[in-house]
Amino acid sequence: MIAVDVMSGEKPPEVIIRGALKAVHELGVSVLLVGDKSVIENYLRKLRFINRLKVKIEHAKEVIGMHEIPTIACKKKRDASIIICAKLAGEGKVHGVFSPGNTGASLVASLMHIGRLEGVLRPGLATFVPNLRGASIVIDAGANLECTPDYLAQFAIMGEVFASKVQGKKNPSVGILSVGEEKSKGNELSMKTYDLLKDLDFNFVGNIEGYDIYDGNVDVVVCDGFVGNVVLKVTERVFKLTFEFVWQEIGYHLLQRIGFALGYPAIRKLNKKIDPREYGGAPLLGLNGIMIIGHGSSDEIATYNGIRIADIVYKNKVNRLITQRLEQFGFKKKPPPLEKEKI
Amino acid sequence: MIAVDVMSGEKPPEVIIRGALKAVHELGVSVLLVGDKSVIENYLRKLRFINRLKVKIEHAKEVIGMHEIPTIACKKKRDASIIICAKLAGEGKVHGVFSPGNTGASLVASLMHIGRLEGVLRPGLATFVPNLRGASIVIDAGANLECTPDYLAQFAIMGEVFASKVQGKKNPSVGILSVGEEKSKGNELSMKTYDLLKDLDFNFVGNIEGYDIYDGNVDVVVCDGFVGNVVLKVTERVFKLTFEFVWQEIGYHLLQRIGFALGYPAIRKLNKKIDPREYGGAPLLGLNGIMIIGHGSSDEIATYNGIRIADIVYKNKVNRLITQRLEQFGFKKKPPPLEKEKI
Repeated sequence: MIAVDVMSGEKPPEVIIRGALKAVHELGVSVLLVGDKSVIENYLRKLRFINRLKVKIEHAKEVIGMHEIPTIACKKKRDASIIICAKLAGEGKVHGVFSPGNTGASLVASLMHIGRLEGVLRPGLATFVPNLRGASIVIDAGANLECTPDYLAQFAIMGEVFASKVQGKKNPSVGILSVGEEKSKGNELSMKTYDLLKDLDFNFVGNIEGYDIYDGNVDVVVCDGFVGNVVLKVTERVFKLTFEFVWQEIGYHLLQRIGFALGYPAIRKLNKKIDPREYGGAPLLGLNGIMIIGHGSSDEIATYNGIRIADIVYKNKVNRLITQRLEQFGFKKKPPPLEKEKI
Repeated sequence: MIAVDVMSGEKPPEVIIRGALKAVHELGVSVLLVGDKSVIENYLRKLRFINRLKVKIEHAKEVIGMHEIPTIACKKKRDASIIICAKLAGEGKVHGVFSPGNTGASLVASLMHIGRLEGVLRPGLATFVPNLRGASIVIDAGANLECTPDYLAQFAIMGEVFASKVQGKKNPSVGILSVGEEKSKGNELSMKTYDLLKDLDFNFVGNIEGYDIYDGNVDVVVCDGFVGNVVLKVTERVFKLTFEFVWQEIGYHLLQRIGFALGYPAIRKLNKKIDPREYGGAPLLGLNGIMIIGHGSSDEIATYNGIRIADIVYKNKVNRLITQRLEQFGFKKKPPPLEKEKI
């Protein structure tokens, strides 16, 4: 059963619920809809048929908004939907969580109530990026704005497991995002991470450059959450702007306008390919449970895909393999508790 | 007179020389061609008419290659073209330098032989980025991979002067690249920089996100050189890949192929707009002289534009204004010498 936070996104709960029901119908998963019980029941009543064995409701009195400060909100709103989702996952009552809400709050709630896998220093947010050959992942996409080389090395290992078990890639390649391919190029963080990864028994390709992410030359791109977040936001806009730029250049030129119109189906297909909704959400890897964080604007499709990813992560035992790999690579010890876990 | 390093780029010296001569003819500047004297003279002889008053030659025995390690190469190759260019600028014998070579070597040579302006902690590389309304600049684009808030604050001030004096913008806006617009969002570096900039008497707009760079909402984007370099390389590729993606989606669909062909002139115009050659090169701001660093693949147009920028920076007294602004904002003291300056 996957818990779905239906309240925290920017879209109304109905949209998220529709996505959850689609997942029930098409994937056969069970879902637990977490949010205002009367709102959820009202909506379900409108529908002709609901499989009550596979669709449950858990009431949540409160919601954490997109612009609330995560640590403060998670401390104050003990009955918020995301907190309840995380608690249920921590108690093993659900297999995973999909939340389209405040990323920071999902992170804090996860640390407080799900906790980390053994040996994990910090969970890392893994985001899909489309490329010419399919999709690679960038980890960390924004959960950790200050990182150490150890964190990045663990992100590399967790990302590799994810690419292999969820995307089905054989021996996925892992690269560190830096400013040049040579080992000597980078900042202190990237160079020390290089030293940690270079002797591990996996497909480490060394440094990669900004150019390489979208070429699909590497399956797992490792960086700190500040860099990852900036890169993903820049590219999301650049893809869209390119067509605005072209349209601007076309101006009133009739033939070119016709050309644009004729080519538009391909542009639409591309927009679908690079649409974050198609990937559902970003898994927060390294938790002792499953948390998929969707875009704030997640709709029906995004919710469906987010639940789908949670289900694959669960069925393919990604977390067990992460623990094994970390142990294999010498990250055995239980790290000290984090500030956020103690809230 | 602008010194032009004709040897260090990826293109043959003839290409760079053609760009320099174009600048002589069209802008009326004088140039000093620095490189192998016989190669330069051979090429000039082939041409029918050269204004010998405006085109001089300075022999350089050596070249620093694109993949040499900057500090080592600058120490060993005392007669390299970029070293001679920097020395001439440091001695006041030329007004500025254009080099299409190894960025690191241009930086080290500049620090060794030109030195910093009074009060400048680190020079920052300012790069033009095209946007829907024209072009903004990103500073630092890769000269400083490890930064402190003080460096970033100075980059902001220098970038603002550049946007105002070279791009002719009135009261240019300055933003810090971060992961959210709120003051509280960012890493330690970005948040401390925010505190330094918030009370200065200029058009500081606070944090901006990756989305904003290409919208043209801000004139000067401030970040550390690691982030700046990654962002610029990612976007350079994403712009180009967008069309490859579209072509991939079109496949064998005839009407869409025709559409692509009809729209192609607009795509070509866009490619010209985002072409780094159109901007010539990135000025290294904060030096006690003028150094414009071109792309390694700089050709005739890039060289012409690089010299044009150097000329504008010189004529508009950008450096004098940078010193004034830094003093106005309390950066008066001579900072201690850098390791690289002592080589």
